[in-house]
Amino acid sequence: MRNQLFSMLEARKAEMIDIRRYLHAHPELSFHEQATSEYIADFYQGKEVEIQRKWDGYGMIVTIRGGKPGKTIALRADFDALPITEQTDLPFASENPGVMHACGHDGHTAYLMVLADCLIQLKKDIPGTIKIIHQHAEETPPGGAKAIVESGLLDDVDQIFGIHLFPTSPAGTVTYRSGYAMAGRSYFKLIIRGKGGHGSSPHMANDAIVAASHFVTAVQMIVSRRLNPFETGVVTIGSFDGKGSFNVIKDSVVLEGDVRYMTKEAQQLIDQEVHRIVKGIESMFGVTAELTYTADYPPLYNDPEITANVVKYLNRSVGDYLTAVSEAGMLSGSEDFAYYLEKIPGCFFYIGCKPKNTEEVYFNHHPKFDIDEDALLVAAKSVGEVVCGYYGLE
Amino acid sequence: MRNQLFSMLEARKAEMIDIRRYLHAHPELSFHEQATSEYIADFYQGKEVEIQRKWDGYGMIVTIRGGKPGKTIALRADFDALPITEQTDLPFASENPGVMHACGHDGHTAYLMVLADCLIQLKKDIPGTIKIIHQHAEETPPGGAKAIVESGLLDDVDQIFGIHLFPTSPAGTVTYRSGYAMAGRSYFKLIIRGKGGHGSSPHMANDAIVAASHFVTAVQMIVSRRLNPFETGVVTIGSFDGKGSFNVIKDSVVLEGDVRYMTKEAQQLIDQEVHRIVKGIESMFGVTAELTYTADYPPLYNDPEITANVVKYLNRSVGDYLTAVSEAGMLSGSEDFAYYLEKIPGCFFYIGCKPKNTEEVYFNHHPKFDIDEDALLVAAKSVGEVVCGYYGLE
Amino acid sequence: MRNQLFSMLEARKAEMIDIRRYLHAHPELSFHEQATSEYIADFYQGKEVEIQRKWDGYGMIVTIRGGKPGKTIALRADFDALPITEQTDLPFASENPGVMHACGHDGHTAYLMVLADCLIQLKKDIPGTIKIIHQHAEETPPGGAKAIVESGLLDDVDQIFGIHLFPTSPAGTVTYRSGYAMAGRSYFKLIIRGKGGHGSSPHMANDAIVAASHFVTAVQMIVSRRLNPFETGVVTIGSFDGKGSFNVIKDSVVLEGDVRYMTKEAQQLIDQEVHRIVKGIESMFGVTAELTYTADYPPLYNDPEITANVVKYLNRSVGDYLTAVSEAGMLSGSEDFAYYLEKIPGCFFYIGCKPKNTEEVYFNHHPKFDIDEDALLVAAKSVGEVVCGYYGLE
Amino acid sequence: MRNQLFSMLEARKAEMIDIRRYLHAHPELSFHEQATSEYIADFYQGKEVEIQRKWDGYGMIVTIRGGKPGKTIALRADFDALPITEQTDLPFASENPGVMHACGHDGHTAYLMVLADCLIQLKKDIPGTIKIIHQHAEETPPGGAKAIVESGLLDDVDQIFGIHLFPTSPAGTVTYRSGYAMAGRSYFKLIIRGKGGHGSSPHMANDAIVAASHFVTAVQMIVSRRLNPFETGVVTIGSFDGKGSFNVIKDSVVLEGDVRYMTKEAQQLIDQEVHRIVKGIESMFGVTAELTYTADYPPLYNDPEITANVVKYLNRSVGDYLTAVSEAGMLSGSEDFAYYLEKIPGCFFYIGCKPKNTEEVYFNHHPKFDIDEDALLVAAKSVGEVVCGYYGLE
Repeated sequence: MRNQLFSMLEARKAEMIDIRRYLHAHPELSFHEQATSEYIADFYQGKEVEIQRKWDGYGMIVTIRGGKPGKTIALRADFDALPITEQTDLPFASENPGVMHACGHDGHTAYLMVLADCLIQLKKDIPGTIKIIHQHAEETPPGGAKAIVESGLLDDVDQIFGIHLFPTSPAGTVTYRSGYAMAGRSYFKLIIRGKGGHGSSPHMANDAIVAASHFVTAVQMIVSRRLNPFETGVVTIGSFDGKGSFNVIKDSVVLEGDVRYMTKEAQQLIDQEVHRIVKGIESMFGVTAELTYTADYPPLYNDPEITANVVKYLNRSVGDYLTAVSEAGMLSGSEDFAYYLEKIPGCFFYIGCKPKNTEEVYFNHHPKFDIDEDALLVAAKSVGEVVCGYYGLE
Repeated sequence: MRNQLFSMLEARKAEMIDIRRYLHAHPELSFHEQATSEYIADFYQGKEVEIQRKWDGYGMIVTIRGGKPGKTIALRADFDALPITEQTDLPFASENPGVMHACGHDGHTAYLMVLADCLIQLKKDIPGTIKIIHQHAEETPPGGAKAIVESGLLDDVDQIFGIHLFPTSPAGTVTYRSGYAMAGRSYFKLIIRGKGGHGSSPHMANDAIVAASHFVTAVQMIVSRRLNPFETGVVTIGSFDGKGSFNVIKDSVVLEGDVRYMTKEAQQLIDQEVHRIVKGIESMFGVTAELTYTADYPPLYNDPEITANVVKYLNRSVGDYLTAVSEAGMLSGSEDFAYYLEKIPGCFFYIGCKPKNTEEVYFNHHPKFDIDEDALLVAAKSVGEVVCGYYGLE
Repeated sequence: MRNQLFSMLEARKAEMIDIRRYLHAHPELSFHEQATSEYIADFYQGKEVEIQRKWDGYGMIVTIRGGKPGKTIALRADFDALPITEQTDLPFASENPGVMHACGHDGHTAYLMVLADCLIQLKKDIPGTIKIIHQHAEETPPGGAKAIVESGLLDDVDQIFGIHLFPTSPAGTVTYRSGYAMAGRSYFKLIIRGKGGHGSSPHMANDAIVAASHFVTAVQMIVSRRLNPFETGVVTIGSFDGKGSFNVIKDSVVLEGDVRYMTKEAQQLIDQEVHRIVKGIESMFGVTAELTYTADYPPLYNDPEITANVVKYLNRSVGDYLTAVSEAGMLSGSEDFAYYLEKIPGCFFYIGCKPKNTEEVYFNHHPKFDIDEDALLVAAKSVGEVVCGYYGLE
Repeated sequence: MRNQLFSMLEARKAEMIDIRRYLHAHPELSFHEQATSEYIADFYQGKEVEIQRKWDGYGMIVTIRGGKPGKTIALRADFDALPITEQTDLPFASENPGVMHACGHDGHTAYLMVLADCLIQLKKDIPGTIKIIHQHAEETPPGGAKAIVESGLLDDVDQIFGIHLFPTSPAGTVTYRSGYAMAGRSYFKLIIRGKGGHGSSPHMANDAIVAASHFVTAVQMIVSRRLNPFETGVVTIGSFDGKGSFNVIKDSVVLEGDVRYMTKEAQQLIDQEVHRIVKGIESMFGVTAELTYTADYPPLYNDPEITANVVKYLNRSVGDYLTAVSEAGMLSGSEDFAYYLEKIPGCFFYIGCKPKNTEEVYFNHHPKFDIDEDALLVAAKSVGEVVCGYYGLE
């Protein structure tokens, strides 16, 4: 079946590109992807699938039931765009001012729609069920994945797969990372309230700027002294809002922070330590501190065994449509695919899409971001390969 | 002459009050006191005095040359108002919205105009010269006093006197402080420039918030470890402007600080130490720091011998128009009379003006600030007493 | 009686000097002044006084009952020496190696013994009771004064007086300070316990040095931000005992601190804030902290009215045996006379004793400390003057 | 030849154990291993090898020239012991009180002597040269490896191999880490000199404890803000020697620190930042700071290609004398084998030696450390396997 699938995909390469260009021209922001969602739903109109939605948000699950009983797998592509004003000269550049598919989600969706359609056509030979997830709102916490997982509609899924287009390597290359691969992220906001007063009379006031500055210096100790040095963690205070009059002791300041980690353990440790330090600041300075601390996306964990299988399946095609399959370092970026992987073992890997014939490469989220569209077929074949490998379809 | 002067002042008490009320109704901000200045100048129209101005600003020196040769003294009253919206129900409340004589300068000017007029009438008996300083812009650095001192017009003055109305004690009381009596004040602005970057990649950036927080904590050491514990000093960081996006490492922050001290030595020490710490922060964090540090008003120093004389003169009238003359603590507020005292020995003392029959007293700079107008005559007599005492006029 | 007393004192000037020299040659450490005590007691042998002791320690109260009923006053001199090796060439230098009367207590005792003896001889004219306190252990907390006060033997005393010899001004001068005059002192010891571990594995340990360093930096804020800038306070961490192996994370460190203040309010504030910061360090770092905090000597407070009387009495003799009586600044040193003044109003003042004909002056506690022995008679007359003044004895 | 070699090794298993036990009973400290060195040299007496020494220290290079021309490889075992008092009940426990082979170097040397002897016997079939390094002083910086590398005697070596016995896994297991595998280490000593003074007079002194505490808090920023979060780094201040008298401001303190890193880049970064902060502390506090900063051992870097080959060779014997070959995490410990790998590509891997039938395992450097002696044959075969693999000897 693999060869049949690959022939079908090759024949529909232009269609993938057309879909990608259409989506690129019509980007929509996270949680507002109504037209995109209708466009996708229309595509499946009349095909032998079941479409489900059970959450606020425009994502959908398209279920392809194979001709034979067996395991269930899920394939996911995200379809939201970013609040960025496109600066490319592409003929199919964004027609929606201030919104841009600058992260390749147009390509993710395009390849998966065509791959899904091929699998629908071949489904009588598939010994199991394939759930195609067209996901909304990957870019904006809490993201679409969380709600989809919580809907229960994926409870029967055995393994899940997804890819991301990255222009760090050319089309034809696949990179992956076994185990923890992409960073989790938390956000916090800390309001420290002291007592205002005249600049000349500190004893009548309680200086919130001094307390907050001690918080900032104490917080450095989390990464330097609490975290396992072989772990990765970042605690950034990105905002220290303590603007006031020079001769008035500041009554309160607002800090906002960004936390990154590669493991659940590091996530919990940093969470606990920030809370501990906040408590200490309260005791030490007699201020009151209001801390809001929320986990955005968890660290993304690729199951090592499944990842090894993915690598094994793909390595067979190195020399064919793939030029290289290699392990990547951990990435400090975050992905809400991590929510699926918290519940379902699977693998999220990376498809090279570096544009040909350009000197300068613009990375994801850049207003000049672009892809080599050859990567769409590579993505489709690679994920198809994994499906065939998983079901043992030669 | 003293008794004659006092009789004249008593007879003109109502006039003092009228002038004060007129000024109160027509307040003008520092450096914008044009109408006030004309009102005062009109008062001296046709009187045997010389009026001089040699600076930008509406202040003037009114010189009364006595009938006999002798020493020269100066008496000063300030006449500017504050950017405060008056909240009293006085029939003569401010007619200039948002501007208010909330610091008693209306009373200072009123008593001194009448006192000056009496001295003009008695001048043939005065063995010396009296310079009446009607000063603009006391409330706003650099203030009016500095320019008047620098004009050279006071170079021949032997001693200088001034008073302030304070509602901390009732009319009839005088308080004073020998030596350093009111705080000097400096201002600084510190821009710390690091390098911005993504919140997840501190090694690619240079976090200005962390550097600035270390500055804030290190600065505490100036007062705690550098200053003589028997000296007074305050270093307040009133503004820490480091607002930004939580997930972006802040490239630069702006701090603003307020410094108070009671002696020149403390002033210089704190100045030097803030500069030292700024330099250290640059080395330590590899940031660049731009420091603007300016002295506003110096600490106010009352000559102990002259102050002792003032006390001696005034003590003679305790039981008469005065109920008490007592030493006060040092005040953390600042006064640009300090500039005169840097050049000319003298004494600046305080006249009680606590309103009668009120439960709550509103202090200087409060929108409900008011005075007991009986204090105007007390001020006129007290300063007249000092003049008589100085010249040995019984 | 004053003149009679003064004549007697003048006649016994040499005796005062002899006593002082004897004591100087035979110094004894605080709480070990047995021989000194016996020497003093012998002096009173057979005189019409009552000697009392009601505490551990060699001090004594010698009560002189006047011939007429009246008020009771106390006069105090301390008699302990210091653990200092004398470096003078005096013929009567210390015969007790490593122990030295380097603080003038020999002189205090000498003048008071002779003054007491004179008062005994004149007692029929004294309208009241005089309690002579020969006090042990002024130099070493908790000091002798505390126990003497707590004995109740001074409960009937109306006013108390004492002096200290200081070489800051020549014999013939008296200085004083009304109100708070000498610093109070507290001591603290802080043991911070974290968890030891290998230098390469901070996450397995809890670094006590980092926690303690944050304590040291946070503590600076007490003086800089909590204390009234017009108050005096010092918090010194004199000892940071964290010596260990460079590659082992330190499990615990011991800090020791010295606190100074001029008022009860400052004492309480600093006490409270140190406790607060310690609590904050525990929360912040998850360490345990054991704080021992003890007040040694309170700030010394001279009753303003009594001090004014002392000044009035002494001023009458300026030009006679006194050359000047002037107000001094506050002193950062501590004195256990403060304990008497907590219970009994009084005045502790300073007698100049700067040696004549020397270029370099060695201050109290220096191994070359010495006095101008003329100061002994000045001390005796000054205190005698206060006694006569108090009882209205001309 | 492989099979022949393995048969020979199996036949001499008891001899390996005897040698190990002899060495275990006669441990010698780093740089003092004279007897050990003679014992080893005696072993090679009369064998067809060349023994070379060109440095201070007891290590030696034993060169085995194969019968055919070819590449040169080196195999290294270290032979020094630790200053630890042995607490085992072994019949061959240390006879040298206070010195113990607690790190397995006895086993390293034992297996390599026997392996070397076998290779000597088989040398006519070896197409190249094998240099056996019996190294002194691995435990004490600067270590023996540095001098041996600098001697130039290894300049012709193409690849180098070494192993360490670790009781983290049982005999029969091999673990390895490709790329950076063991931490580099630096040491620093920082003397901060301020100015001593009386605890009550901070303005007359310059408090070294406050300056040093700011150093400790600022240093945390290196790992938290300067280091790439995907890198590993540790900066521990293990010693803060600031013990003094509570009421004396400390004039100087001595800090000692331990630095760990996994790459040259991290090493340089931390070095540079510690220097930068020291300079900042000098500026900020007006203290002088004397910093001694020395790199001990570099991070150990296993060549990925060579490591992959080692894994490939060893994997063939899983199921035979090996039960598992698996990748390990990075280790925070340091090894002077890293010096060889800075100059010569190679691989340093780990041989499991967890004692059988014990509940509690004591790790390296523990006074009860012991090994499963079966691991000696495993080590010999594994390294022999690598030699055969390298030369393509079946």
